[in-house]
Amino acid sequence: MFKPLGDRVVIELLETEEKTASGIVLPDTAKEKPQEGKVVAVGNGRVLDSGERVPVEVKVGDRIIFSKYSGTEVKYEGKEYLILRESDILAVVE
Amino acid sequence: MFKPLGDRVVIELLETEEKTASGIVLPDTAKEKPQEGKVVAVGNGRVLDSGERVPVEVKVGDRIIFSKYSGTEVKYEGKEYLILRESDILAVVE
Amino acid sequence: MFKPLGDRVVIELLETEEKTASGIVLPDTAKEKPQEGKVVAVGNGRVLDSGERVPVEVKVGDRIIFSKYSGTEVKYEGKEYLILRESDILAVVE
Amino acid sequence: MFKPLGDRVVIELLETEEKTASGIVLPDTAKEKPQEGKVVAVGNGRVLDSGERVPVEVKVGDRIIFSKYSGTEVKYEGKEYLILRESDILAVVE
Amino acid sequence: MFKPLGDRVVIELLETEEKTASGIVLPDTAKEKPQEGKVVAVGNGRVLDSGERVPVEVKVGDRIIFSKYSGTEVKYEGKEYLILRESDILAVVE
Amino acid sequence: MFKPLGDRVVIELLETEEKTASGIVLPDTAKEKPQEGKVVAVGNGRVLDSGERVPVEVKVGDRIIFSKYSGTEVKYEGKEYLILRESDILAVVE
Amino acid sequence: MFKPLGDRVVIELLETEEKTASGIVLPDTAKEKPQEGKVVAVGNGRVLDSGERVPVEVKVGDRIIFSKYSGTEVKYEGKEYLILRESDILAVVE
Repeated sequence: MFKPLGDRVVIELLETEEKTASGIVLPDTAKEKPQEGKVVAVGNGRVLDSGERVPVEVKVGDRIIFSKYSGTEVKYEGKEYLILRESDILAVVE
Repeated sequence: MFKPLGDRVVIELLETEEKTASGIVLPDTAKEKPQEGKVVAVGNGRVLDSGERVPVEVKVGDRIIFSKYSGTEVKYEGKEYLILRESDILAVVE
Repeated sequence: MFKPLGDRVVIELLETEEKTASGIVLPDTAKEKPQEGKVVAVGNGRVLDSGERVPVEVKVGDRIIFSKYSGTEVKYEGKEYLILRESDILAVVE
Repeated sequence: MFKPLGDRVVIELLETEEKTASGIVLPDTAKEKPQEGKVVAVGNGRVLDSGERVPVEVKVGDRIIFSKYSGTEVKYEGKEYLILRESDILAVVE
Repeated sequence: MFKPLGDRVVIELLETEEKTASGIVLPDTAKEKPQEGKVVAVGNGRVLDSGERVPVEVKVGDRIIFSKYSGTEVKYEGKEYLILRESDILAVVE
Repeated sequence: MFKPLGDRVVIELLETEEKTASGIVLPDTAKEKPQEGKVVAVGNGRVLDSGERVPVEVKVGDRIIFSKYSGTEVKYEGKEYLILRESDILAVVE
Repeated sequence: MFKPLGDRVVIELLETEEKTASGIVLPDTAKEKPQEGKVVAVGNGRVLDSGERVPVEVKVGDRIIFSKYSGTEVKYEGKEYLILRESDILAVVE
């Protein structure tokens, strides 16, 4: 697999159907459409001006909602992944 | 439910009628229209350059006024939510 | 009433006639017209990178001059208010 | 009078004739024309990220040169004033 | 060879065929196409406001994915290199 | 004379002939033409976020090269001066 | 000669022929063409918010690669120089 740098995370895209497994339905009309994904790799976090490194708030396995159109798509062994910055993640589905 | 990241909060939208329950009436002509919502989930707060995490100033149950057009809409089990950053919240209705 | 967040303040708008109560007359030709208001609620202040919270420099009851076109208008129980950031306040009338 | 906030100062405008009292003549062709004023009120200074407040470098009575088109004009009891930020002040005439 | 400054790294470009050695296939349609490279030189890292220098998260020999269109191309003894900033590196292939 | 604020300096313009006294010739074709001046007054320096004031790196009498089109022109007792920020000064001629 | 300010360096331009002395060949098609130069003077370095001054990473005599179109050209005693900021230097040729 691959290890993202800094505050980046790698996620598997989850198809956002009319009604997803976790029960989230995304409105068609949202200007900035959120999407769902599952975290598969997490970076070491960003470094503050104080020199401290802040761990990323999500962990491998978390289902997350992120802003559509954010991140970079990568294919690896036939599967599609997205590399996001932590700041593009809106929430963790519990 | 879902847990927002950083200084984000999840709110339920409150219909802003001519006269709302809390008595706030929003002018039609305001260029940047505020709206009302009820906080249903709160993130852990943003991290300062000093490494300190600042708790969000609102708590679950608070009625808030926020800037229209801010945040990202999400539907969950048929209900509509909005994920906002703390900086998009103008005031708490007391 | 409502409590503003961070370094925001809530003010009542004061009609700026040709000659106001406090004697301030605003020139017609000013590109960035200032206006007068009375502070009715004050936030807890902004948080510095050091973690310190800086109290807002104005207090409830102060008559202030602020930059026109700044802030967000809100109506509450028939009265019109403006929510400003401290940085939009130019001076306190003494 | 009025007390400016933060690093703002209030000045009285000085007519910049061909040859002013202090002997400064401003060129007609300068793209960013400076102007002269007399300081009548000074704010408490801006707050650094360290929490320290930096006193404004000018004091009441100082004759200053500032960048034209900066600041906000205010009339008070028939007199015209300008509210500037300290960073708009170029120099003190000695 | 050459030593990059600050948080820069020098990489050899790896041809991203339909299926690369490490098994990563890049989608044709990605707006911001990532690419693969091998790190051949690493700078000393960027200096924080605290004065601390943060070592670069990759090391010589690492296979990395970076954002296409980032960096500056340089040819040295017939070979093509790319000088990137650490922030343009998305992930390390493990 | 006048005392510049913060990290500003006041300079006398030096005519940049084909060959100046110090032997610097400025190319006609330079997009961002540098110019020469002599420092006649120096501010106290800028204040860092730590509260420390950084003395300006040039002193009265220094011949400096600065970026053309930077600064503000001022005339004082018939002489033309330029008020620059330290960051507009490229080098000191030795 | 002249002493550059802050994190600036003065370099002599090196003609980048098809094949330079150090063996670097620059591609014709690079959008942001790098170039070679030899460092002839180095500033004292930039000052961090902590008050610390960071020495420039290059020294007099270093052959460097820098981004084309950066810096300011100066002629001195018939020779052409370029004044760059440290951040415009990509790498040192070893």
